[in-house]
Amino acid sequence: MTDDTERHNAKMAKKKAARDKIMATKTEEKGLVIVHTGKGKGKSSAAFGMIFRCIAHDMPCAVVQFIKGGMSTGERDLILGHFADKCAFHTMGEGFTWETQDKSRDIEMAQAAWAKAKELILDETNRMVLLDEINIAIRYDYIDVAEVVDFLRTQKPPMTHVVLTGRNAKEELIEIADLATEMELLKHPFRSGVKAQAGVEF
Amino acid sequence: MTDDTERHNAKMAKKKAARDKIMATKTEEKGLVIVHTGKGKGKSSAAFGMIFRCIAHDMPCAVVQFIKGGMSTGERDLILGHFADKCAFHTMGEGFTWETQDKSRDIEMAQAAWAKAKELILDETNRMVLLDEINIAIRYDYIDVAEVVDFLRTQKPPMTHVVLTGRNAKEELIEIADLATEMELLKHPFRSGVKAQAGVEF
Repeated sequence: MTDDTERHNAKMAKKKAARDKIMATKTEEKGLVIVHTGKGKGKSSAAFGMIFRCIAHDMPCAVVQFIKGGMSTGERDLILGHFADKCAFHTMGEGFTWETQDKSRDIEMAQAAWAKAKELILDETNRMVLLDEINIAIRYDYIDVAEVVDFLRTQKPPMTHVVLTGRNAKEELIEIADLATEMELLKHPFRSGVKAQAGVEF
Repeated sequence: MTDDTERHNAKMAKKKAARDKIMATKTEEKGLVIVHTGKGKGKSSAAFGMIFRCIAHDMPCAVVQFIKGGMSTGERDLILGHFADKCAFHTMGEGFTWETQDKSRDIEMAQAAWAKAKELILDETNRMVLLDEINIAIRYDYIDVAEVVDFLRTQKPPMTHVVLTGRNAKEELIEIADLATEMELLKHPFRSGVKAQAGVEF
């Protein structure tokens, strides 16, 4: 072995030992409150990625779409077409709020979605419940953030993961989250005139 | 209608008009170079979310895992089990680099993965190719960033989307990306002693 290779291997062995030591302290299993927010892309698709992981592990799960109901997403078709037995799928919204211009109906929709969300979370057979774009409904005060926080803290079954997505997540929600990620936009193709495309945006 | 509702509806109508106007200027379709980087979670799962969107749209696609080969991920099982006809799946690495302590083998693996990646990208039947965790291989200089940038700029078929994930994406790569997102860690459950869990981490 060259000196360089030896140095590299020693460094990697040290990294591995450090990592193994840290990982050995991580012994707890619990249902997490997970928040994906920020202006960047990937908030919903990363959450759907976790739903697909659950499906792969035969963990029953559920999705409530709070806002994007008007759009037919690829994920929805895929779940309904192939995994409807493992993942319940509820689309409660009717497209982005600025598509509807009817505040009272939006509030009604958001409240109905939240009622369905609570029901799915309380059903302990569900190991993960994704509340897609709920942050937008909370941000417009269609759903009271204090009620969401209180429900997640006091009524969520301890082993159930709940994932909440959407930009502008309220601080109160991030405070009670176990895992929170901000997707930050570094570059976006819309800026250079490229339209939304299958596979990427929907 | 109350004044408040009228004001809200007028605001939403204005938002919709502004959005429609902007979207009308987005007419181009092209294959994108997409980068997911940052220390936060969701880089790979958001990319897999896009792969599932492609699968849902019957767009042939492919995945090359550069680093995580040693781990059996839920996504891999799901794709191989259900959608192997739509998505080619190649696992070239053998676990994280600090698990192996053999630099020359790591370089060999990374180079083999890159050769496979080029082959899949050049095959125009693939509409999206995901190079999972390639940024780590590039960061360790197992693969030359200049070669990757040059290949993507000059040889990538114009309609093919290529997604590159992993923390510490090199600046040169972000420069040529059409869409780049930094997943920023706001909170992580490992900090409070919670271990990696099915559905969330794998």
